[in-house]
Amino acid sequence: MGSLGSSEEGLVADGVAADALADYQHPVSVEKFRKLGYEVVDMICEYMSSAKQRHVMPDVQPGFLRPQLPASAPQQPEPWQDIKKDFYDKIMRGVLHWQSPHFFAWFGGNTSGPSILAEMLIASLNMIGFSWQSSPVSTELEMVMMDWLGKLCGLPDKFITAASSSADQTTSDAANGSSSNGTAAAAAAKPGGGVIQGTSSEAVLVAMLAGRARALDGQPPEAALKLVAYGSDQAHMCFKKAAMVCGLQHTRLLKASAEHDYALDPKTLQEAIAADLAQGLIPFYACATIGTTSSCAVDPVGELGRVCQQHGVWLHVDAAWAGSASILPEQRHWFSGLEHVDSLSFSVHKWLLVNFDCAAMWLADTTWLKEALSMTPIYLRFTGNVHDYKDWQIPLGRRFRSLKLWFVMRMYGAEKLQGMVRHHIALGQWFAQQVEADGRFEIPVPPRFGLTCFRLKGADNATNRQLMEAVNAQGVIFIIPTELSGQLTIRFAVGNANTQLEHVQRGWTIIKEQADKLLAGSISSSSSEGAAGAEQQQQQQE
Amino acid sequence: MGSLGSSEEGLVADGVAADALADYQHPVSVEKFRKLGYEVVDMICEYMSSAKQRHVMPDVQPGFLRPQLPASAPQQPEPWQDIKKDFYDKIMRGVLHWQSPHFFAWFGGNTSGPSILAEMLIASLNMIGFSWQSSPVSTELEMVMMDWLGKLCGLPDKFITAASSSADQTTSDAANGSSSNGTAAAAAAKPGGGVIQGTSSEAVLVAMLAGRARALDGQPPEAALKLVAYGSDQAHMCFKKAAMVCGLQHTRLLKASAEHDYALDPKTLQEAIAADLAQGLIPFYACATIGTTSSCAVDPVGELGRVCQQHGVWLHVDAAWAGSASILPEQRHWFSGLEHVDSLSFSVHKWLLVNFDCAAMWLADTTWLKEALSMTPIYLRFTGNVHDYKDWQIPLGRRFRSLKLWFVMRMYGAEKLQGMVRHHIALGQWFAQQVEADGRFEIPVPPRFGLTCFRLKGADNATNRQLMEAVNAQGVIFIIPTELSGQLTIRFAVGNANTQLEHVQRGWTIIKEQADKLLAGSISSSSSEGAAGAEQQQQQQE
Repeated sequence: MGSLGSSEEGLVADGVAADALADYQHPVSVEKFRKLGYEVVDMICEYMSSAKQRHVMPDVQPGFLRPQLPASAPQQPEPWQDIKKDFYDKIMRGVLHWQSPHFFAWFGGNTSGPSILAEMLIASLNMIGFSWQSSPVSTELEMVMMDWLGKLCGLPDKFITAASSSADQTTSDAANGSSSNGTAAAAAAKPGGGVIQGTSSEAVLVAMLAGRARALDGQPPEAALKLVAYGSDQAHMCFKKAAMVCGLQHTRLLKASAEHDYALDPKTLQEAIAADLAQGLIPFYACATIGTTSSCAVDPVGELGRVCQQHGVWLHVDAAWAGSASILPEQRHWFSGLEHVDSLSFSVHKWLLVNFDCAAMWLADTTWLKEALSMTPIYLRFTGNVHDYKDWQIPLGRRFRSLKLWFVMRMYGAEKLQGMVRHHIALGQWFAQQVEADGRFEIPVPPRFGLTCFRLKGADNATNRQLMEAVNAQGVIFIIPTELSGQLTIRFAVGNANTQLEHVQRGWTIIKEQADKLLAGSISSSSSEGAAGAEQQQQQQE
Repeated sequence: MGSLGSSEEGLVADGVAADALADYQHPVSVEKFRKLGYEVVDMICEYMSSAKQRHVMPDVQPGFLRPQLPASAPQQPEPWQDIKKDFYDKIMRGVLHWQSPHFFAWFGGNTSGPSILAEMLIASLNMIGFSWQSSPVSTELEMVMMDWLGKLCGLPDKFITAASSSADQTTSDAANGSSSNGTAAAAAAKPGGGVIQGTSSEAVLVAMLAGRARALDGQPPEAALKLVAYGSDQAHMCFKKAAMVCGLQHTRLLKASAEHDYALDPKTLQEAIAADLAQGLIPFYACATIGTTSSCAVDPVGELGRVCQQHGVWLHVDAAWAGSASILPEQRHWFSGLEHVDSLSFSVHKWLLVNFDCAAMWLADTTWLKEALSMTPIYLRFTGNVHDYKDWQIPLGRRFRSLKLWFVMRMYGAEKLQGMVRHHIALGQWFAQQVEADGRFEIPVPPRFGLTCFRLKGADNATNRQLMEAVNAQGVIFIIPTELSGQLTIRFAVGNANTQLEHVQRGWTIIKEQADKLLAGSISSSSSEGAAGAEQQQQQQE
């Protein structure tokens, strides 16, 4: 038994020295924490105030930090003032400022005062809410908050967890004017509901797992090799990554053409499914996108949904960025047809002032998700009100993220949230108008959800990359490229909570000035890697 | 094109109304945030002070919260005082107090002042660090912190990322006395390193994905159906869940017998692999545990590693709870043999005062992990110092979690961290001694890492469950059951940062009193579900 490490003495040690049992003293007392807590609040306020003038990109190179830090942890506690000094001298120097109003790269990632306050409490209660029992309140608040958010987004009833009473339901309809017009009784019978995932990537994966569980039910093992998943060639890289995790043999990236503004044509999906069926394969999952990372293309989810329903294919809608825009009635037409999809998700942490991480996901029927992810046999699962959210996700433990949603929705209110998103879309339109009015540029796809894609007309990829790099090199704004039909295209994405018209104007001024210089030949021509590099960079986006 | 939602007017809207471009005002100004920030710091201090007397379990039933909340988000901002009142009246009433010193359930989940301070800054900077470019400093600090922590745990050199210079390496060896005795040059050549995952569950999964990528390299698609993964029947449920996510056809839960204190015998693994090979299957992955959830059993990882290496099987070590104990030299013998494993992980957020989430994972060679999880073709990946941590995990986005490690390790220092873990282990020993000295109880497995498993001698499962429920019903401490060889066994896990001897004494007093009453027949006998229920509950543990 020696090799198995069993203790050689008896099971219980003979005695414990008294000094080993003496009270343990933490080096940071409650009163010291109070003082430092106030100090950190002040640091945050200073950051919030200065972020408005801050440039986005840090001036550091890979490997900059290690030489500045000791190789090992200290033996003894270090004074706060030393740590604070290092925070400013070493950490802040290497921060890419996602909170800068000059951040026009990828899509935004907004935090807010209310969300930070909630995070403080979340970190202090530190509940690990894997099951109802382990954290009753975080489970229950999450259920309610996902209903609040779902109603704010005008989601079909099937995604809203049962209202607990008809009085509740009446209040909801009156107060919100949402599409929740089912009766409480009907809602109570539905197995749908919402869950907070860490990221939209995880939502795309767990939806795929649910679809797989449904498709393989009662099938022989070999059927797994015949599964086919579909997305457009504009789908986020997380779709391909999910397919890799699932070990799929067949993943179709269907062509979404410029003619359709890079949206997936339902006919293309229909034909692909028919061709795979003819080969004896099993179409099981499709991922549509509302607001692609590359160009904010919008797949027609209703029509795609009808195609999927016809063939028993699970349709997930990834609206990572644009989902937040569904809180605006005037943008909701982009989201029509959701009654025909199985699940959808968006990253609340991108646009809606809830800091990372908080990705909202809704399912019309959670049965197959639980079948894919629960260890509890189906006959032992609670059928009542108890949610064990561990059965809705990959990790076991989970944070009390719904508190952030609660604080933000209450301290802003629906109208203020709508006002900010509407403001960003208007700023995006203003930017697009300037670009269009400047004859040197072209805009290859309709600007949407705050994103404008543009490039120098008639210029090659290397020249457009040169322009983008020259703009970023000014050290104020930060933009990134994408690739559309092989052409390097510059993205300008408005969506930071601090961005006002003046910041967009400044961005446009820099772009114009650098274009002037470039076209006048004063920036030397480079042998840039062009579109290949652009695609690589775009693939990294969430 | 109508169905694809292309705009019918020109690409760019004709004009943006001036008022749509007017500056957006957030309802919470910086100065208001400062005031509320101080107030929340005070709320946290109050919670910290009162947590020491707090009982663990809330008195709520499923569905308690929804009737207390509106059915929809408010339209207008609500006053902070209303939200604060609701926080106390509605949220706090449903909290299970993981920070209570009377928390002896599952394993602990500790937060600390320094960790909360770091979370405040993380939430404020809100970098989404998927790649080096998107957040240089969070990527680099994570690399260094994983080295600090790895050295503190005495990990073999192969898990430590290259030191950047020999000066660094010298400092490290001198200051820390760790096992890092390789030369800087040798270290620089290694492909190993550390990463922070959200949870240990995710580490177990991504290690399986890496093992699968290695095993299937160059194999035909059908090979996927032949893969076999191994764990003991004491392995955490996340091992089975990972196998489900991977869609494995063959998952072996090998018997870990009472004779070996529920550790996995290397012979058992050897025989299972041989039997599967004889059937033409492909053994590819094994998950060993140091400190099982059920009883803190320790699998002999060195011997298991040698078996795995012989057959090209990836060995991952899940030390979710006990990993933190490796910071103590006197506990390190339980971790011997790590030089023979491919990867290991532990949940820093359980014991080491870094609040959830923060699970440390190290790999000896990250090549196959990236092969499994990167979208970038291998020939385009950077080979230098740049880590794109998105390629080490399932989600794309990631939080700046290394800042919590940095604050905690610096504000505590290695000795204070060691002191706390040592204190908890001593308190666990004290408890075990009391139980052993009381002739009515038996201790079926050696107490370890603060955990004691015990039961009423000669009593059936229903009676032991009754004792546990009677103890919890007193409303002070919280304990949960497990099942060992079909027998319901009570777990008493010491590991909360606020727990002192007095709290363990109080727990023991309650247990004794309830045993007195039960054995005197004053608690009515129930038809409890016994071990089946215990197993179900234990499965929920992380």
